[in-house]
Amino acid sequence: MRRAVALAALGLGATSPNPVVGCVILDAAGETVGEGWHRRAGGPHAEVHALRAAGERARGGTALVTLEPCNHTGRTGPCAQALIDAGIARVVFAVGDPNPTATGGAHTLRAAGIDVAQGLLEAEAAAGNAAWLTAVRLGRPYVTWKYAATLDGRSAAADGTSRWITSAESRADVHRLRAECDAVVVGSGTQRADDPHLAVRGIEGAVQPLRVVLDTNGTAVTPGARVLDGAAPTLIAVAEDATPAYEAVETVRLPRTEGGLDIPALLDVLHARGVRSVLLEGGPTLAGAFVAAGAVDRVVGYLAPVLLGAGTAVLTGGGITTITEALRLDMSETVRIGPDLRITATLVAKEH
Amino acid sequence: MRRAVALAALGLGATSPNPVVGCVILDAAGETVGEGWHRRAGGPHAEVHALRAAGERARGGTALVTLEPCNHTGRTGPCAQALIDAGIARVVFAVGDPNPTATGGAHTLRAAGIDVAQGLLEAEAAAGNAAWLTAVRLGRPYVTWKYAATLDGRSAAADGTSRWITSAESRADVHRLRAECDAVVVGSGTQRADDPHLAVRGIEGAVQPLRVVLDTNGTAVTPGARVLDGAAPTLIAVAEDATPAYEAVETVRLPRTEGGLDIPALLDVLHARGVRSVLLEGGPTLAGAFVAAGAVDRVVGYLAPVLLGAGTAVLTGGGITTITEALRLDMSETVRIGPDLRITATLVAKEH
Repeated sequence: MRRAVALAALGLGATSPNPVVGCVILDAAGETVGEGWHRRAGGPHAEVHALRAAGERARGGTALVTLEPCNHTGRTGPCAQALIDAGIARVVFAVGDPNPTATGGAHTLRAAGIDVAQGLLEAEAAAGNAAWLTAVRLGRPYVTWKYAATLDGRSAAADGTSRWITSAESRADVHRLRAECDAVVVGSGTQRADDPHLAVRGIEGAVQPLRVVLDTNGTAVTPGARVLDGAAPTLIAVAEDATPAYEAVETVRLPRTEGGLDIPALLDVLHARGVRSVLLEGGPTLAGAFVAAGAVDRVVGYLAPVLLGAGTAVLTGGGITTITEALRLDMSETVRIGPDLRITATLVAKEH
Repeated sequence: MRRAVALAALGLGATSPNPVVGCVILDAAGETVGEGWHRRAGGPHAEVHALRAAGERARGGTALVTLEPCNHTGRTGPCAQALIDAGIARVVFAVGDPNPTATGGAHTLRAAGIDVAQGLLEAEAAAGNAAWLTAVRLGRPYVTWKYAATLDGRSAAADGTSRWITSAESRADVHRLRAECDAVVVGSGTQRADDPHLAVRGIEGAVQPLRVVLDTNGTAVTPGARVLDGAAPTLIAVAEDATPAYEAVETVRLPRTEGGLDIPALLDVLHARGVRSVLLEGGPTLAGAFVAAGAVDRVVGYLAPVLLGAGTAVLTGGGITTITEALRLDMSETVRIGPDLRITATLVAKEH
């Protein structure tokens, strides 16, 4: 199952609106005879890839799958049936499918006389599918806020200079994060200050994320902006009353709120387009708007061993005024990236 | 030698103005027959402790010492002579003694026909003695700035509340840091806001640090302040023209600077009293004054997986305005402390 979880991760960023899934087929003697993962939405599911690789050797064998095999016919046939047809004797899956249209696979398999077990490495498999599982549960994309800062929490010096607080290694790692997400979002401040490109570079085979700029007044994105090139799809969100200065790129109109655009409305639009994971790469104001909207699920911070003592704070205006209201997370991982430290913290789930 | 380095660390916080030193004696057959470390200034040196434990078995044996054995008679006799008298055949030390009054031990040993080698585990031993070595090199105490912050670099919420950003485990760990330092320093802001006690609690046998309050105008420390109790010695630093409102505790007068008291002058006073390591526990202004004075050698940050988005920054006014002037350090250690993360970063040495 550990291998299946690793296989599933290979699909991150490419499968939405579907989950990532990995599958390993063992023959009747317990030898691995097939592996597969879900590579892209509309393509074969993990089980189908793995069964194809196994061929006749799957008969009487075991399928280890990270997610409950689906039971419905979408763009592809139901995997439960494929497993039955291949003569699989036993199915072990890690996480039950919470999706009402796809669930029921375990029932179908059992009805066909297959031995079914659930829960092996469930936590690891669920962590690998955190974005998709959260999206199913909340009906909105899973949001990761990425920031780069000094040890004293600054993202730029007092005069606005910030190139480069973190190292080349950290900046390369951000491309991996982008590649694993369906959309990358910045606000008008970052758009104006940095004219960012937001596409994935340096990762072979990566599916480009949707580049999203929240340009409330339609004035931050100007002709020739780098996000308007053809490297990746782009969506500009503007206020309902704005008159943007550009054409030839998709634009969506959202309600205004006190600080800018309505974040839940944005997430609705993205969810409807099949976006299940969002990487927030904007500045402190955009991050604060997402925090205020209760729409930050995970934080990935790149901390450089640098002190500034003045300059831009990484997060502002989240609406928190006293310590008891602070947003509390769990440190889930810390990794050295070159001279820097990458800290991943995830929201303490209040449900479940 | 690794064991000797571990033994040396047992003396941290208790040996100033002397270094920490560990010593292991092997007999002629290579068996460990004695161990010792320097426990407190004025007491026997590590070599003497170890030789006493070894007794006659030291004859023809090897002494592994973290620092070059001293050559001078201070409050105790020279260790080089003690090793010669014990009939030691070979001395291996990690770090040469940079102290002009104590150096020359290796020469004396060689002149007595003892085989002498230097440099084994030198980096580890030097790291264990970083405070003392820096103090010898710079002629001022080694300064560690300790802070506790949220992931977004805040030490308190917008309304000033901060209890508790970090966990009980992190707060306990701070007592270990205090116990390893000779003096703990806060400024008038922290004195007023927190009325801190600053003594070590919960660590058996710890030598209490000197508690130092920078009370520029002599108005922050008031009768009944917790630092005025008898739990540890206390020194109040005030401006030359201040008229402090308290008595019965030692006070030192320092020149004023733009933001408060002259930091190099404070460090001179502390160095003259035998303080070799200082723990900075104050707020952002005090930390900024030390950064501006070029007097931060190490940073120990306790990061809680919490977001605030507003409130007090951990560091202000270090005099850095642009990114190229940023204070750059090396991440030297990251350790999970309960739910928090402790990050240790040390100044990139420009000398050596």
